[in-house]
Amino acid sequence: MTNPVLVEVARGALVESRHRGAAVVADADGKQIFAVGDVTAPIFPRSAIKALQALPLLESGTVERYGLTDEELALACASHSGEAAHVAGVERMLAKAGLDPSALRCGAHWPISQSAAAALARIGTPSALHNNCSGKHAGFLCLACAMKAETAVDHADYIRPDHPVQRQVRAVLEDLTGAVLGEELCAIDGCSVPTWAIPLRNLAVAFAKFGAGHGLALQRARAAARLRQACANKPWYVAGTGRFCTEIMQRFGGRVFVKTGAEGVFCGALPEEGLGIAVKCDDGASRAAQAIMAALIARFLPLDAADRAALTPFAEPVLRNWNGIEVGKVKVSEAI
Amino acid sequence: MTNPVLVEVARGALVESRHRGAAVVADADGKQIFAVGDVTAPIFPRSAIKALQALPLLESGTVERYGLTDEELALACASHSGEAAHVAGVERMLAKAGLDPSALRCGAHWPISQSAAAALARIGTPSALHNNCSGKHAGFLCLACAMKAETAVDHADYIRPDHPVQRQVRAVLEDLTGAVLGEELCAIDGCSVPTWAIPLRNLAVAFAKFGAGHGLALQRARAAARLRQACANKPWYVAGTGRFCTEIMQRFGGRVFVKTGAEGVFCGALPEEGLGIAVKCDDGASRAAQAIMAALIARFLPLDAADRAALTPFAEPVLRNWNGIEVGKVKVSEAI
Repeated sequence: MTNPVLVEVARGALVESRHRGAAVVADADGKQIFAVGDVTAPIFPRSAIKALQALPLLESGTVERYGLTDEELALACASHSGEAAHVAGVERMLAKAGLDPSALRCGAHWPISQSAAAALARIGTPSALHNNCSGKHAGFLCLACAMKAETAVDHADYIRPDHPVQRQVRAVLEDLTGAVLGEELCAIDGCSVPTWAIPLRNLAVAFAKFGAGHGLALQRARAAARLRQACANKPWYVAGTGRFCTEIMQRFGGRVFVKTGAEGVFCGALPEEGLGIAVKCDDGASRAAQAIMAALIARFLPLDAADRAALTPFAEPVLRNWNGIEVGKVKVSEAI
Repeated sequence: MTNPVLVEVARGALVESRHRGAAVVADADGKQIFAVGDVTAPIFPRSAIKALQALPLLESGTVERYGLTDEELALACASHSGEAAHVAGVERMLAKAGLDPSALRCGAHWPISQSAAAALARIGTPSALHNNCSGKHAGFLCLACAMKAETAVDHADYIRPDHPVQRQVRAVLEDLTGAVLGEELCAIDGCSVPTWAIPLRNLAVAFAKFGAGHGLALQRARAAARLRQACANKPWYVAGTGRFCTEIMQRFGGRVFVKTGAEGVFCGALPEEGLGIAVKCDDGASRAAQAIMAALIARFLPLDAADRAALTPFAEPVLRNWNGIEVGKVKVSEAI
C-alpha cells in the first residue's frame, strides 16, 4: 500500500516537500485506537526503543549492584547531544562497572549539539563517549559486567547478536511487542548493535505496556516504571538542551514518555491514558516524525491551554532562515 | 499524481526508507528525452540554479570591471563547504568591489565541512563568509556595486525582489526556463534572496540551454560558457573537499555541469550531449536526489569503464556506521 502524506513543508505560499508515513496508537491489550498508513510492515525502530533495550539492565539487579542513578538510567535510554554532563555521566556509569571508555564499541562522532561540538573542537576530537548512543552502550556494558561476575561471560563482545546481553534484549522485545524476531529481520544499527524490524502496531502495543505496566510480568513492569520515572526526573539526560524528547518530558513529566529514532521513527507512551504510540516516516525524515508525534500527543492527551501552547511549536514548527526570517512552516495533515 | 519511488535505502536485507520524486532530461528545444513523475508542478530550485543566477554578473561586464577570476566565478555558482580558501575567495571578491564582509546579507552558519567547522571553532565563530551561499551573495554585491557606479542604485538592498540585481536574475530565469515567474511563485530562500517555483521540465530545458548555448542570445551564451569553464577549471570552489558536485566536475571536466540545491533538488547539464537534467525528491532528501543525478549521468553520458566505476559510489552508495561496518545501501529504482 502507498502510505498517505502526513506532513507538508511549505515555503511561502507553496508546498515545497511532502512526507508520507504511518502512525498508530494502541493500548496494552493490542486494541488500535488510531491508525493511518501501513502499520503491519516491519520497520527498524532504531533508537526509539532504547528504553525497552534497557529493561534487562534493571531486571538483572545491575542497577542496585552498581548504584546507578536516575541520570544514568536516563542516559541508558538516551540519544544524547554529547554535552559535557552527558559525557561525564556515561564515563561515570562505566567506572561503576570497573571499565574505562575504551570498552565502548559504538564508534565516535561529533556531538549532536553544535555548541558542544564547538566546545570540544577547542580542546580535542570526539571519542565514543560523545556518540549519542554511548549511554545505551554503557548500560549494556554494566549488564555484561554484572553477568561476567556471575557467569564468566566476556563483556567485550556485548554488541554481538549472540552475546547474552543482546539475547536478553531480543527476548524482552519479543515479550513486549509480541513479534517473533527471526534472523531475517535483524540488521546492524548505527552504533553496531543488532536492530530488529518490528511492525509499527506491535511497537505501539509495546509502549502501551511499557507505559502502563499492564500485560507485563511484575518484575518487568517495575523495571519499566523505574525507567519512566528516571526519564521523567532527568529528561535532559535522554536528549539534551532544546531537544524535543527533553522539552516534552520536562513539560509533561510522567504523563508522556517519548523517544526519537533514526530514519523517521518515534515511539512514545501516554501512561495515564494507557496508550502507546509509534510513528515511521517512509523517507526517514525526523522533522516529520517529530511533528506527527507532537500532534498525536495533542490529540490523545487531555491538555489545558498552556499544554497545548507548549506543543504547538513542535506540531506546527515555523521555519526560519539564517537571518531569522520566517520562510515557511511544517504542517501535519488532517489525517493525524 | 503520486510520484513513484525512485530510491530505496536498505538496511540489512530490508528496505528501511523510500524516496519518491520526479526527474527529467531535456534538450534546449524543449524536447523531453526522459521523464519520470510529475515534471510539470512548480518546485523551488533553491541553490541548484546558482549558475543561472550568476549570469547577469557576467553579462553586465562586472567580471572584467573587477577582474574576477575562475575561482571567484565558481564561488558565485557555489554552495561551498566554508573551507579556508572558500572563505578567503569570497572576501577577495568583496574587496574587489570595495566592500567588506559586513555587506553580506546571507546570515551566518557553521561551515558545511566538519573539519572546517572544527578548525573555525578553535579560533572563533562563523560569520556570513562561512554561509554556503556567501559566494553567490558576493557575486550579487559585485553586480550591485557595478550598477551603483553607473546608476546610483544602492547595493545594500541587493536581496530584495525589487532590487535591480534580483530583477535581472528573474528576467534571466524567465528567459532560460520559459516560465513566467509571478509573485505567487516567489518565496524566500535560506539565504534571504527570492526563490521562484519553476516546473522541473523547464529547469531541465534551462540547463540544456546553459550547457549548449543553443537557444540563448550570443552574450548570454558566452556568459554561460564562461561560467561552465570556470566551474570545470575550479570545481573545488563550487562545493568542497569530497563533495559530489566537486568530485563529479573534477572527474568529467566540461562534460558535466552539476549543482545541488536544498530540499532534494539537483540540476545539471551534459553540454556535449546537448542535455539538461533536473531532479526533485518529494521529501527534500539530498541523499536520494544525488543518487538519482549520478544514475542519470551514467545513463545519458557515454562512459568508459573507469568513468562508470567513478560514478558507482555516488549512484549506489554503501552505508557504513560509526565503526565503518557496512549496514546498508542506497539503490536507485529501475525507473531511472
